[in-house]
Amino acid sequence: MLVNGLPGEAISAEDRGLSYGDGVFRTLRVQQGYPVSWLLQYAKLSRDCGALKIFCPAAELLLGEIQSLCFQQQDCIAKIIITRGVGRRGYAPTIGENSTRIISISATPQYDTNFFSSGIALHVCQLRLGNQPVLAGIKHLNRLENVLAAGECQEVGLPEGLLQDERGFVISGTRSNLFSLRNGTLYTPDLSQCGVAGVQRERVMAWAAAQGLPCKIKQIRMEELLGADEIFLVNSVFGLWPVREISSYHRTTHPVAWKIQAWLNDEK
Amino acid sequence: MLVNGLPGEAISAEDRGLSYGDGVFRTLRVQQGYPVSWLLQYAKLSRDCGALKIFCPAAELLLGEIQSLCFQQQDCIAKIIITRGVGRRGYAPTIGENSTRIISISATPQYDTNFFSSGIALHVCQLRLGNQPVLAGIKHLNRLENVLAAGECQEVGLPEGLLQDERGFVISGTRSNLFSLRNGTLYTPDLSQCGVAGVQRERVMAWAAAQGLPCKIKQIRMEELLGADEIFLVNSVFGLWPVREISSYHRTTHPVAWKIQAWLNDEK
Repeated sequence: MLVNGLPGEAISAEDRGLSYGDGVFRTLRVQQGYPVSWLLQYAKLSRDCGALKIFCPAAELLLGEIQSLCFQQQDCIAKIIITRGVGRRGYAPTIGENSTRIISISATPQYDTNFFSSGIALHVCQLRLGNQPVLAGIKHLNRLENVLAAGECQEVGLPEGLLQDERGFVISGTRSNLFSLRNGTLYTPDLSQCGVAGVQRERVMAWAAAQGLPCKIKQIRMEELLGADEIFLVNSVFGLWPVREISSYHRTTHPVAWKIQAWLNDEK
Repeated sequence: MLVNGLPGEAISAEDRGLSYGDGVFRTLRVQQGYPVSWLLQYAKLSRDCGALKIFCPAAELLLGEIQSLCFQQQDCIAKIIITRGVGRRGYAPTIGENSTRIISISATPQYDTNFFSSGIALHVCQLRLGNQPVLAGIKHLNRLENVLAAGECQEVGLPEGLLQDERGFVISGTRSNLFSLRNGTLYTPDLSQCGVAGVQRERVMAWAAAQGLPCKIKQIRMEELLGADEIFLVNSVFGLWPVREISSYHRTTHPVAWKIQAWLNDEK
C-alpha cells in the first residue's frame, strides 16, 4: 500500500475521508501490470474529484504508483482512494491541494465459474436507495447504503442484490451496474438521482454503439425489468454476470450478454 | 488522541470507517473534566451503533478515555468515532467485536458573542437532503451532504445553513437541530426520513415537557417556519443560537429561546 506515495498502511485519524466520507475511490483490475481501461478509470476519478472540489493527482503519478505496487503481482485488483485530506474541525470543506491518496492492491477474487456462464440469482434488496442528485453517479466514500444492502445479500446467501430507489425504480446491483435487453434494445437505469456510474457501464454502452445495438438510459420499473429478454450486471472486478433469476424472473440463455462478456474479457 | 485506547494519531487505511463511512460519531462538550450530558450522549452512540450492528464499547471505557485526555484541558470539545473496524474487501459488513474507537479532543471554539444574544442569519441551503429512513437520525460517518451544505454557508459567509429535504420540508441546520415556536407551542422537524437526532434536541424536548410547554415533532414547510414567533438552533458544541434572519424572516426578540439557552448553559 502507498499513502501519498510512501509505503505504509496508516492514515491520519483526522483525515476527512474518515470523519465524513469526504472522498472518492475506484476499484480496478490490473492485468499484466497495467490497469484495465485506465484512461476511462482516471477520467471518472478526476470527474468525481471535480464534482466534490477535491484535488485529483495527475494520471501519471497514480499510474506509476499502481505499477510500482503491481511489479511482483502483475494480475490483481487495485484500489485508489482520494480524500480531501486532513482538515480543520467541522464540516466546511477546505479547497486546496492537500488531498490524501491511497493506493492498495489485493488478489483477484475467485468467483464461482457458474456466475459467469449460467448467471446468478439476484436478491431483491429491501433497502431502497435515497435520492441525492448532487451526489448521484459519483463513486464517493459515503457507502453505508451499499454496506447495508450487501449485508442483506450476505444473510440470504446470494452473490449480488438488486437496488431500487425510493420511488421503486431499478438502479443497480449493490456493487455493479445493470443492463437489460428487450426486443433488441439494451436499457440501463437512469442514475441522475442515485447510484454509481461505473466504467464498465460506459464501456458496455460504447460496445452497443459500435455494434449498432440501440442502448437507452431509462427509468426502469421492476415489472419492466422482469419482462426483459436478458438481464446482466457489470463491474470492473468480475466483468459481467448474467442474471439467471430475480424472484419471478428465470432465464437460462443470454446470447447478447455472453457476446459482451467475451468482449469485456478480451479488451483493455 | 487515543486510537483503541493507545495514544496515536493514525488508523489503518483499510478501516471501514474510511472505505465506506461505516461508523458513527458524537461531538460533545467537556466541562470541568466531565462530558456534558454523558448518559444521553452514550445512549445515542450506543443506539446508533446498534442500528448499524457495530460493536459499541462500554460507557465506562469511553468515559475513562475522554477523562484521561481531558486531564490537562478540563474544558474542551471531545469527539468519539466508532467504526466497524478493519474488514475484508467489499461492502458486506463483518459483524463482530472488532470496532475501532477514536477519542480526540480540541479547544472549545470561540464564536461571535452576538450569535448567542442577537442570533444569527441563516443561509437557506440549495442542497436538499436525500431521504433514507433506514439511516435517518443516526449520526453516521456518511456526511457528504453536510460537507457540501457547509461549503455553501462558507461561500456566503454565514455561520449556519438551513437544510430542507427533497420534498421541501425543513429538517435542520447543517450541524444543528432546529426548533420553532408558534402560538405557545414548540415544534421540531420530523427526522424519520433524514437528518441527525442530536442530544440537545432531546434535551430541549425534555425541558419543554418539564415547563409544560407543548412540543411537537412535525413535518414543517418553509412557509410555516417563516411564520414562527421564534426560531433557534441547538447543538452540543455551541448550545443555542436564536435565528435572527432567514431570507424574509426577521426577528430580534427570543424570550423563550433565551430561557432555554440559559438552562442549557447551566445544566449538565
